[in-house]
Amino acid sequence: MSDAKLQSVLSSLSQMARQSDALPSDRPAPDASWVKLNTNENPFPLPTMIMKSAIAALERQYLYPEEDNISLREAAANAYGVSIDQVIAGNGSSELLGLVYRAFLAAGDRVAMMSPGFSFNRKLAMLQGAQFLEIEFGEDHSLPIEQLLLGPAKDAKFILLANPNNPTGAFVPVADIERLVAKSDRLIVLDEAYVDFAPENGLHLINRYPNLLVLRTFSKSYAVAGIRVGFGFGHPEIIGRLRNIQNVFNMNVIGHAVGMSVLAHRAAYADNHRHIRHQRQRVRLALSQLGFSVMPSHANFLLARVPTGQDGSWWQSALARQKILVAVFADKGLENCIRVSIGTKEQMDAFLSATKDINANI
Amino acid sequence: MSDAKLQSVLSSLSQMARQSDALPSDRPAPDASWVKLNTNENPFPLPTMIMKSAIAALERQYLYPEEDNISLREAAANAYGVSIDQVIAGNGSSELLGLVYRAFLAAGDRVAMMSPGFSFNRKLAMLQGAQFLEIEFGEDHSLPIEQLLLGPAKDAKFILLANPNNPTGAFVPVADIERLVAKSDRLIVLDEAYVDFAPENGLHLINRYPNLLVLRTFSKSYAVAGIRVGFGFGHPEIIGRLRNIQNVFNMNVIGHAVGMSVLAHRAAYADNHRHIRHQRQRVRLALSQLGFSVMPSHANFLLARVPTGQDGSWWQSALARQKILVAVFADKGLENCIRVSIGTKEQMDAFLSATKDINANI
Repeated sequence: MSDAKLQSVLSSLSQMARQSDALPSDRPAPDASWVKLNTNENPFPLPTMIMKSAIAALERQYLYPEEDNISLREAAANAYGVSIDQVIAGNGSSELLGLVYRAFLAAGDRVAMMSPGFSFNRKLAMLQGAQFLEIEFGEDHSLPIEQLLLGPAKDAKFILLANPNNPTGAFVPVADIERLVAKSDRLIVLDEAYVDFAPENGLHLINRYPNLLVLRTFSKSYAVAGIRVGFGFGHPEIIGRLRNIQNVFNMNVIGHAVGMSVLAHRAAYADNHRHIRHQRQRVRLALSQLGFSVMPSHANFLLARVPTGQDGSWWQSALARQKILVAVFADKGLENCIRVSIGTKEQMDAFLSATKDINANI
Repeated sequence: MSDAKLQSVLSSLSQMARQSDALPSDRPAPDASWVKLNTNENPFPLPTMIMKSAIAALERQYLYPEEDNISLREAAANAYGVSIDQVIAGNGSSELLGLVYRAFLAAGDRVAMMSPGFSFNRKLAMLQGAQFLEIEFGEDHSLPIEQLLLGPAKDAKFILLANPNNPTGAFVPVADIERLVAKSDRLIVLDEAYVDFAPENGLHLINRYPNLLVLRTFSKSYAVAGIRVGFGFGHPEIIGRLRNIQNVFNMNVIGHAVGMSVLAHRAAYADNHRHIRHQRQRVRLALSQLGFSVMPSHANFLLARVPTGQDGSWWQSALARQKILVAVFADKGLENCIRVSIGTKEQMDAFLSATKDINANI
């Protein structure tokens, strides 16, 4: 194959995105013998009636999905008490986050994220050629409202804020978020991926402020990370601009069926959420007794500072040798932390047992 | 809610995409009592073993899908005899087409499509602010190679060519496509959505020419339009640029499972494809006897010029009154045509019976 021809065709094309440092690497999923506590999945089966809806949808597999996710958006609008033109449905909230970057950010623009935050945002900003600002939380993870209004984030096209935050699990009172949204003329993108494990949420604020976009996902609280169901809620003008550039048929018929069925049966997850809150508390106490320093968390994970002497990566490797996966982060200040998802009782028993074992043999 | 604040936040955002004339409209899917022959679906159930794979995947619903679709890409590479870095997997080929526009096309750039063609491309070009050229096929749907090399398409960033073509069903010999690809220094995007119903395909050409990108979908030939499984095949540099901007977790676990299972059981569709070719021939003859003029088709649909006196829209409405859906097109020269998907024998019987009935009562 002619290399000159390759160079010719490549140079003829517009290069619209910055190239990533690396494409995703070959990382096969671990088999079921591993205890997977590294990506905040919710390891419970689908409730029976939701499973039935999904199987029924498999029998309509040959038909194109409904355009613009109309029935699913309508169901979400009804479930959350908003209007359908305030809702966009996504192939996971990751798709919606990608749309926000593509719709509103030109090369050279600034975007700001509360830090530490979800690192996926760095890649999205990089692809747009945008400048990515990381604004640190204040003392006790308070929202630095004055700094966001007057500091370098003042000219950001939008400000990303996850509540509860990932990877810390910290929660900002919704009243503080409202103060920021009310005072700012910037778009505030509030990622509420973990909010179903928290005491309150900010969705109602979209009726008061046109500069608020709330993202939700069913990956965590409704245990369907593999199905990809997410929503964005905001002013119809903002939502319309995102729908305008969204891929046709962005969700498949199973995503639609599971999304609709979860919306109709949210009460079926009450035990699941109780279980996660209970295990979260149990594991936090147990880790504290082992010398870890654990942030209070309002999400389905815990960020734990490991006992002095070793760093987070050391613990990650030690746990991996016992087939237990946890997450670590390169962010400043998080080098000595591991993030542990809250799974089943059996998974958390295995994690705690391995942790005790490692701790006793350091 | 303050309208001034809305205007303020909207004007603060970069406007990256041209606004569509209209967002998708509220179009509920017809119920099962309709004979749906308007979008080229393949109305047969999943083969049993593929259905079983899909149900098994539903039991892993809580896990994130594999990153970068590695196993699915590997399976496609093996099935089609290429290497994994020559493959990208998409949430339908529609996602992949969208990536091509976003990756390679800046505002003001030109893109060319063979005409008549798939109208979805017009929207994609419009969103990028690109200039959309439509190049007509020559006599007998031949490829106007000289015109593509020397005419206004010469400076197009890429040239879109569907083979078999939609909505005509016409097929260009692969040798002609090879001549174009060999002589051109432009990227040729060859959409082979319907190629499994045709006599030959151009996939092997990607090993010879770095300026060829072949798109495939499982929507038509493998009856899974609702699941969204598509592939792009091309030079690793071109494929890499597309993977670079692709959404993480673009396909869900059901898309992966069904895609893998179809790849392992393609032979199970031999009867399906035979059926479609047989019905296509039968309906073509029957329509000809009724005074329609029907293009020879190598796809799972027929483009039929209606008998003189009425236009395509009139026939579409008359058929809809009998709960039969067919497609019509606004393109110049197609006003007097309807496009009829080839479905089950019962669906085609219903279509032909209604057509006879309408024809007898004009």
